[in-house]
Amino acid sequence: MTSSSERSTKAPDARLVQRFAAIVGHEHAITEPEAQLPYLREWRDLYMGRTALVVKPASAQDVSRILALANAEGVGVVAQGGNTGLVGGQIPSESGAEIVLSLTRLRTIRAVDAAGGSMTVEAGLTLAEAQEAARGAGSLFPLSLASEGSATIGGALATNAGGVAVLAYGSARALTLGLEVVLADGSVWDGLKALKKDNTGYDLRDLFIGSEGTLGIITAATLKLHPRPAETATAFVALPGLDTLLPLFQLAEARAGTGLTAFEFMSGELLSFVARHIPATRRPLGGEAPWYVLLEISGAIEGRARPMIEELLTHAAAAGLIGDATVAASLTQAAELWKLRETASEAQKGEGGSIKHDVSVPVARIPDLIREAALVVEEICPGARPVPFGHFGDGNVHYNVSQPAGMARQDFLDLWGPMSRAVHDVVVSLGGSISAEHGIGRLKRDELRRVKSPIEIDLMRRIKAALDPKGILNPGKVVGG
Amino acid sequence: MTSSSERSTKAPDARLVQRFAAIVGHEHAITEPEAQLPYLREWRDLYMGRTALVVKPASAQDVSRILALANAEGVGVVAQGGNTGLVGGQIPSESGAEIVLSLTRLRTIRAVDAAGGSMTVEAGLTLAEAQEAARGAGSLFPLSLASEGSATIGGALATNAGGVAVLAYGSARALTLGLEVVLADGSVWDGLKALKKDNTGYDLRDLFIGSEGTLGIITAATLKLHPRPAETATAFVALPGLDTLLPLFQLAEARAGTGLTAFEFMSGELLSFVARHIPATRRPLGGEAPWYVLLEISGAIEGRARPMIEELLTHAAAAGLIGDATVAASLTQAAELWKLRETASEAQKGEGGSIKHDVSVPVARIPDLIREAALVVEEICPGARPVPFGHFGDGNVHYNVSQPAGMARQDFLDLWGPMSRAVHDVVVSLGGSISAEHGIGRLKRDELRRVKSPIEIDLMRRIKAALDPKGILNPGKVVGG
Repeated sequence: MTSSSERSTKAPDARLVQRFAAIVGHEHAITEPEAQLPYLREWRDLYMGRTALVVKPASAQDVSRILALANAEGVGVVAQGGNTGLVGGQIPSESGAEIVLSLTRLRTIRAVDAAGGSMTVEAGLTLAEAQEAARGAGSLFPLSLASEGSATIGGALATNAGGVAVLAYGSARALTLGLEVVLADGSVWDGLKALKKDNTGYDLRDLFIGSEGTLGIITAATLKLHPRPAETATAFVALPGLDTLLPLFQLAEARAGTGLTAFEFMSGELLSFVARHIPATRRPLGGEAPWYVLLEISGAIEGRARPMIEELLTHAAAAGLIGDATVAASLTQAAELWKLRETASEAQKGEGGSIKHDVSVPVARIPDLIREAALVVEEICPGARPVPFGHFGDGNVHYNVSQPAGMARQDFLDLWGPMSRAVHDVVVSLGGSISAEHGIGRLKRDELRRVKSPIEIDLMRRIKAALDPKGILNPGKVVGG
Repeated sequence: MTSSSERSTKAPDARLVQRFAAIVGHEHAITEPEAQLPYLREWRDLYMGRTALVVKPASAQDVSRILALANAEGVGVVAQGGNTGLVGGQIPSESGAEIVLSLTRLRTIRAVDAAGGSMTVEAGLTLAEAQEAARGAGSLFPLSLASEGSATIGGALATNAGGVAVLAYGSARALTLGLEVVLADGSVWDGLKALKKDNTGYDLRDLFIGSEGTLGIITAATLKLHPRPAETATAFVALPGLDTLLPLFQLAEARAGTGLTAFEFMSGELLSFVARHIPATRRPLGGEAPWYVLLEISGAIEGRARPMIEELLTHAAAAGLIGDATVAASLTQAAELWKLRETASEAQKGEGGSIKHDVSVPVARIPDLIREAALVVEEICPGARPVPFGHFGDGNVHYNVSQPAGMARQDFLDLWGPMSRAVHDVVVSLGGSISAEHGIGRLKRDELRRVKSPIEIDLMRRIKAALDPKGILNPGKVVGG
């Protein structure tokens, strides 16, 4: 993928590399190409960057000194956490004009305050470690996604990551109370507050969250903790057709309220892919339905979630909204049901190439999206197999398309551009978003300009120029370049 | 209160007034001082502004044309909704250099989508009307505060208003999906999306929310609707001391989870004020306790909330966390209990002058705040009577102080400055905020500069300059002037 670069940042020369290295110590400054590889290669091989230096600071003070130097010298800086991003935001360009600033050494858990419902951790902690820290204090940090073993808090906040617990607890943004951010010139904004309410001026916190390292570099965050549910009930449900998805969701929401902690859906064809390609999985229900839903209800008090989910299914069956259904009788069975949903993306690999979209529309428009997108996909590639799935309750559809059987994989992948533009046009016509939870990075930068109004792009660029006047922070990403 | 004005905006001359008036029609352009009064006087008489013109547009297009002209001519513009703001943000300066732009004619309900959980309304609709529109569609728009009959959606979003339903549903920010905003130069940003997830670039929505008309003027919003709870149970509880507030809150949260929809507290002395000065109120419990809590639990399914609140009270009593308690047996009784809490501020009038603070700290620090603030208050005015109350679960304390009995009212009010600075210092030392839900406006503008870091003030000013380069939007408020 090419970049219409307008960058003014430059690659650091050998002397400058030494000055950066001196800040962190030479053992934390990587210049050998082989050792740099894990920081330059995007994990799906969509991008491969180049850099003179991967620098690994140990503290916000280190980050501050690195940015002050980079800003003074006009060197671009790409912040990176666990390198699990899905839009290339964490990878430097092929030009070598940026250094990579890896935050994985900022790993201190500064405070856990279960009573107050917050904890303050540094950016390089993984999501799994943050969850564990909360669990150790008897609380829940609910942000959960497939890559949580590697993905870091800093990366999750920089991209406003979503995941499987958004329906009940919100995206990363909703789980963040305060931030510590190093600004382009190296100054440090201490916005680490553990407050539920704070109306003192502009919402800087939410401006940095989701800005993908283009406005500042998050070095620590105060995160919201929730009480751990005492009990969770999980069901897997077959649906007779697309049109009962929305009424079933509404019924679940009306009966369970905020106790409804998951409402994930997948197409029947995608469940077949899972059963076919993922070892140790089996269909949990007889027959083949066009759509399936994984439902979860959580309760604060033991013994209430399971009767609630059973009553819900009884009502849904009586109303003709569902066909067969099963409720997990144990944690093991619940994990088996979740595995069907969580391996959906992986299962697609067994069917050849796939073109992926992370989009959202108002929940009530999901059926329209699925119907209308299928038409444009079929027009662009007859026989291609849409296998939508995702977080129905969030309006978030992973509109993935598997290649037609027998087609050459690369021929299909060559259609990524036109197919994505066509799917995105449907999304926009339904009032939707071309990036629900992955961000813009580099992958969707040009699409962003195509689908957003010039007024909105101009607003973002004015903010970028105000906060990073020399354009050193993640050049060429989001609205840059 | 004085203002260190650095404004460059100017009062419009007669010819310019005519040009503004021509945009809206002369019947909607108020130039007579008598007719202007309701737009110039702050309702507690803290401020009285002056202006050449109050202009009342009927649409976002009108607002766009007014701002384009104001920006071209360098005329300041103060946006105003229901004129119920508590920090003077809606009142023009005494200099007459700004016009007042009243949004009360923008009253269209553009769409209500109960199935999709959203509605789009214009800025001039009152909160009560918005609640009613949601109710009519079988849904709940939970933003609720004392002035909801006059306060508008636009004003509530401009100040990120809070109120009594924040614990379960969040502040105005959490209830907003999308915005339509007229920018300083008159261009219109259409950000009216009804999406739960949207990661396409910088979070412009949350930047405008809470910016008090200094970055743009909100003309419409897409708001989040919630399912109406089927049942609500309300209790009023006496506490033996300050130290059982937090454990009681934690117990309530652990047992009711997100079903806990209110946890409001007030001092015993304040309840005495209510019983003494508010007609048709009586103490709901015998004896006199130092602290009282109003608890509310809501449920999606009939018949569950009341047993849940009773079980909670049984556990709390067994743990020694509460003394006497009563559960409302009817909606009328629940309303009577709520009245005790809602008239708390009004009841203070019967005791002479009062100095008020809208502050927040981490929930677990509220007892520290109450103890430490009492010391500084006693130092500044011996015999002054702190009567704290507020939204305990949000960490939000209305730290109000009634004058000593017998002191001259004005002598007490003259202590507002030093007492507020001292209380705010305690708040800041506890990691708190000097404005939890009212905003900064003009009242707390100088305090904002005193308590925030220069880096944060500079960040806000850079954003202000980027979005409003001529400084025409609400000059002298928040970080202006």
